[in-house]
Order: sequence, then structure tokens, then C-alpha cells
Amino acid sequence: MDRVPVLKLGDILIVSIQIDLQDQSVLALQEDLADKVVATGARGVIIDITAVEIVDSFIGRMLATIAAISRMLDAETVVVGMRPAVAITLVELGLSLGGVRTALNLEKGVALLKHLEAPRITTAAR
Amino acid sequence: MDRVPVLKLGDILIVSIQIDLQDQSVLALQEDLADKVVATGARGVIIDITAVEIVDSFIGRMLATIAAISRMLDAETVVVGMRPAVAITLVELGLSLGGVRTALNLEKGVALLKHLEAPRITTAAR
Repeated sequence: MDRVPVLKLGDILIVSIQIDLQDQSVLALQEDLADKVVATGARGVIIDITAVEIVDSFIGRMLATIAAISRMLDAETVVVGMRPAVAITLVELGLSLGGVRTALNLEKGVALLKHLEAPRITTAAR
Repeated sequence: MDRVPVLKLGDILIVSIQIDLQDQSVLALQEDLADKVVATGARGVIIDITAVEIVDSFIGRMLATIAAISRMLDAETVVVGMRPAVAITLVELGLSLGGVRTALNLEKGVALLKHLEAPRITTAAR
């Protein structure tokens, strides 16, 4: 069970991180996500870190990389469910999640993605 | 990280099982879910088992128990993401997921829950 499942809901992919990620499982997750974004044409990726108690530079870089890969494939990434303690640690460590948007929870993440998509849809409709 | 996070999306709770569940974590999950169904007034619970490679009688009983508890609290449970091998094993073992509905994936699970809710909403509207 060391592969993180990628769920699809409409044009959003949802990933809930619950296991301690090792180098290998991070690479697998990045590949799975990239494959699935292309296969499904997803416009958004939501990464839930409710269960993550410690975010170090390794996890921070992983989130930034996933966001960068997704953006290349025309999908926005939102990290949701960050614990207060994690936010405090991130700031104290001076780690910024470069290019990664955050939202309080899954619902707000979905709302944010819908909001981000709106202008693109309008443009396409012209 | 031995607590399975419960995500909320509208009036549906989503649980993605990725860790090997022990007695303790199963009890914690049942409590968390029951608490959250009551706190949020959720009408549906979706349990994703994409990452689960082996479903034995322990997991089967857990799913049935969660479904029974949720039903008491007026929420329907749908298990999604079952692997083909898991379905085969379940049938071969003669394990039926008593009272547990299944759907192929998260999207179909959400659609099933919406379908199940429809008549109740109609009745309430009279």
C-alpha cells in the first residue's frame, strides 16, 4: 500500500496524503498525477494534507514540484487541510510553498479551483 | 499518521483508506466518521478502497459496521474503488459486504448518493 491513490471528481483530481512519503513513493505519485491529468484532462489538483503532521523541506519541495508539473499540463494545484502547527513550522523554517495555492479544506479548495477556471472558460466561449 | 482523515464535500464525507488498519485505527475511524456525520449533517459517506489490496473479513466487517452506524445517523455509505482482485477474493471467500453499496469510482459513488437522496428531498418538499 505505498502508492497514494488519485481520485477523480469531475475535472478535479484529489489526492489525500496519509503515509510517510519516501523518495520512491513521491516519484510514483508525481508520475501517477501527471499521467492522470493528461488522461482525464483535469483542470485542478487538490492535495489534502490533513493527516500530515510534519512538513519539512522534502514535503514542501514535493508539493511545489507537483504544482509545477500540473501547471505545465494546464492544471492548477491547491493544497488543503494544512494543520495550524504545520503552517507555523513552515513560516518559522522560512519555507514558502512556492507557486502552491492553499485553501482551508476540500470544499474551499474546490471553490477556489472553480473560481480560477471561470475566466478561462469565458475566454474560450468568445 | 494513524488516523484516517475524513474529508467533506457538500453533504458527502469522503474517506480514502490507505494504511493497514488495526483495531485501534478502525475504532478511531468509526468514531471520527460518526462524529462528523452528526456535526456536518452529511447525507452520504464514500469510502475509497483503491489502495486496499487485501480485503479480509476484518475489513469487510469494518465496512459493514461503518455503513450500519452511518445509516443510524441517516447517511448512506458507498464503497468505491474496489480492485478486481479484491472483488474476486470477496466472492471466493463468500464474504458479502452486507448492507454496503458499491460503485466503481468516486464519481459514480457521488452520483449514486445523489440518486438515493432525490426521493427523500421530494418527500420533504411536500
